Amino acid sequence: MTPEKEKEKEKEKEKEEDQVVLDAGMKRYRNGEIWEFEDDMGVSDGGTGVLLGLDGGTTSTVCICMPMVPFSHSQLQSLPILARAVAGCSNHNSVGEIAARETIEQVMADALSKCGSKRSAVRAVCLAVSGVNQPTDQQRILGWLSDIFPSHVRLYVRNDAVAALASGTMGKLHGCVLIAGTGSIAYGFTEDGKEARAAGAGPVLGDWGSGYGIAAQALTAVVRAHDGRGPSTMLTSSILQSLGLSSAEELIGWTYADPSWARIAALVPVVVTCAEAGDEVANKILLESVQELASSVKAVVERLGLCGQDGNSAFPLVMVGGVLEANRRRWDIGKEVMNCISKYFPGVIPIRPKVEPAVGAAWLAWNFFMKDYQKAYA
Amino acid sequence: MTPEKEKEKEKEKEKEEDQVVLDAGMKRYRNGEIWEFEDDMGVSDGGTGVLLGLDGGTTSTVCICMPMVPFSHSQLQSLPILARAVAGCSNHNSVGEIAARETIEQVMADALSKCGSKRSAVRAVCLAVSGVNQPTDQQRILGWLSDIFPSHVRLYVRNDAVAALASGTMGKLHGCVLIAGTGSIAYGFTEDGKEARAAGAGPVLGDWGSGYGIAAQALTAVVRAHDGRGPSTMLTSSILQSLGLSSAEELIGWTYADPSWARIAALVPVVVTCAEAGDEVANKILLESVQELASSVKAVVERLGLCGQDGNSAFPLVMVGGVLEANRRRWDIGKEVMNCISKYFPGVIPIRPKVEPAVGAAWLAWNFFMKDYQKAYA
Repeated sequence: MTPEKEKEKEKEKEKEEDQVVLDAGMKRYRNGEIWEFEDDMGVSDGGTGVLLGLDGGTTSTVCICMPMVPFSHSQLQSLPILARAVAGCSNHNSVGEIAARETIEQVMADALSKCGSKRSAVRAVCLAVSGVNQPTDQQRILGWLSDIFPSHVRLYVRNDAVAALASGTMGKLHGCVLIAGTGSIAYGFTEDGKEARAAGAGPVLGDWGSGYGIAAQALTAVVRAHDGRGPSTMLTSSILQSLGLSSAEELIGWTYADPSWARIAALVPVVVTCAEAGDEVANKILLESVQELASSVKAVVERLGLCGQDGNSAFPLVMVGGVLEANRRRWDIGKEVMNCISKYFPGVIPIRPKVEPAVGAAWLAWNFFMKDYQKAYA
Repeated sequence: MTPEKEKEKEKEKEKEEDQVVLDAGMKRYRNGEIWEFEDDMGVSDGGTGVLLGLDGGTTSTVCICMPMVPFSHSQLQSLPILARAVAGCSNHNSVGEIAARETIEQVMADALSKCGSKRSAVRAVCLAVSGVNQPTDQQRILGWLSDIFPSHVRLYVRNDAVAALASGTMGKLHGCVLIAGTGSIAYGFTEDGKEARAAGAGPVLGDWGSGYGIAAQALTAVVRAHDGRGPSTMLTSSILQSLGLSSAEELIGWTYADPSWARIAALVPVVVTCAEAGDEVANKILLESVQELASSVKAVVERLGLCGQDGNSAFPLVMVGGVLEANRRRWDIGKEVMNCISKYFPGVIPIRPKVEPAVGAAWLAWNFFMKDYQKAYA
């Protein structure tokens, strides 16, 4: 960039900032339509402001709006939820950047609009989105957010696993979380801030313990049974029936007709039902997914030393996601994974969060904001 | 459709057909620009006409133009190639329908234009395209073709495996073919026309013996080594170096930045090099791919009974594709697959075709056309 252009940009930025000061509520940072609701509101809605916590998964995205009350940390759980909005997939690796950005912006606008707030009332935003794997992902999303919000809003971007952990630990980043929904990931933090992750690299990169992984293997088993490479399985009739297809050949067309990972992962309950009915192929797929999920947790716990030097120290393990929560009659994947992990680490404390990960993201926003605030005024 | 509308459509069709008879060269069946070259040619180029054979794969598409000479079958090999044109992927499951159709039309136009022919000179077209898995796929592509060519042109649509088989058997549909390129498939025919296939269901449905499958497993091994779930492997430094990336985290972004399967499959030589250098992880991936490929052939041969009742009968096995053709120093995947198969079926006759599959497709067009012709005038 030439120095002239840089100066021009600087001036534009100053102008923009002036505008924010004059009338933050009226300014459109990006998509006009999304934020139109703000036009009908007063110049400032004052108060202590609000927080946004967003949990962006491969299947759906949830945004929670909470009041920014300077509570003590122990009272965090009593913060009321002012609004909750839901949208589709916001993993840019799955739906592309444009769609992911649009979804994130829309769901935040919906949450604010639902509780009669607007962007000028926002104090902090924590976006916990699947697909955030490296600093450049984080920087890109921070860029989107800074186009949307006035510059005084505190912005935090993390992998969605971090919000899931926070939902089980009241916003404290310590211990390990295992998510197994459409995708799967294990993510952990030590008390002094070291972090590590395992799996969570999506379907191409061997996410076999995930809902997608389980379902893709079930579909593969149907194809293999059909063409003579594998044993026959109850999965064939069950999956074809649940999809309304009449032959295994049609499965191929069905599979590639829509690249959405969530659509494939939605077949997990069919696999569990077949396993419960005694189908060996389905049973083997679930057993392997249990091993995969347990090995992800094991890798994170060992790298961070969460289990202590003797391997017996206590640490929280937060378990989240449709694959782990399905509490079936005989086949409970979550329970099997926990059995497996407690053999390695007797000190493990399993936590099934009572709140959803988006609330965890809002708690994180509160925690991060309070820390920054305390630092600034210490 | 109402009877009036049907009549109208009939009339339109008649008009179209008249137009074809009057001036086939000038008529634009679809995309004007693609066929503009025909405008500069005479009204009819007469002669015995030409054939088009097209091999549409997931990596590239090749179209061959040959003269339609009523040779005897044994002289087929001496049919000259009038033109050869190349384009990108035409598997609709990989790039979508619109792109696949455009590629197919363009490559046929290029082949005709190169040898100074036009659509009115075409007698028969054999399109052998990967992703043709069921009658509806075939019907859809026949629909595209009938928009492009005058109605007297004979049109044949098959899976690309059929052209590969024909390239090794002089257009005769008997025996088995194994393709392992970006994707993999085994396809076979008995002399009395029964057919069977195995694998070839793409990356989501467990095409682990394919180039894509080998490379995806290598990428997965890098991620597993990085996050502590798997053993360390030479694949990490080799793959990162060949992609110009600096960390395993960056691999995730690289993997999902572009959904093309061929881009991933292009890493196979790196895996082979690592296996040759003694890397155990790479070696295991290749050994498993050999087993996968051999099991596909086994399934087809057994279902069709190509090996006879005693299991020792002779049958041709045509082997095609980058994964099988790579003749490395120590690791020759094709040779290992053949060793494996000849243990099951001592009568197997391996054939490495001397011509490319697109020539096989042209030979098939010739064979199909001659059969139809003989039937009509018998």
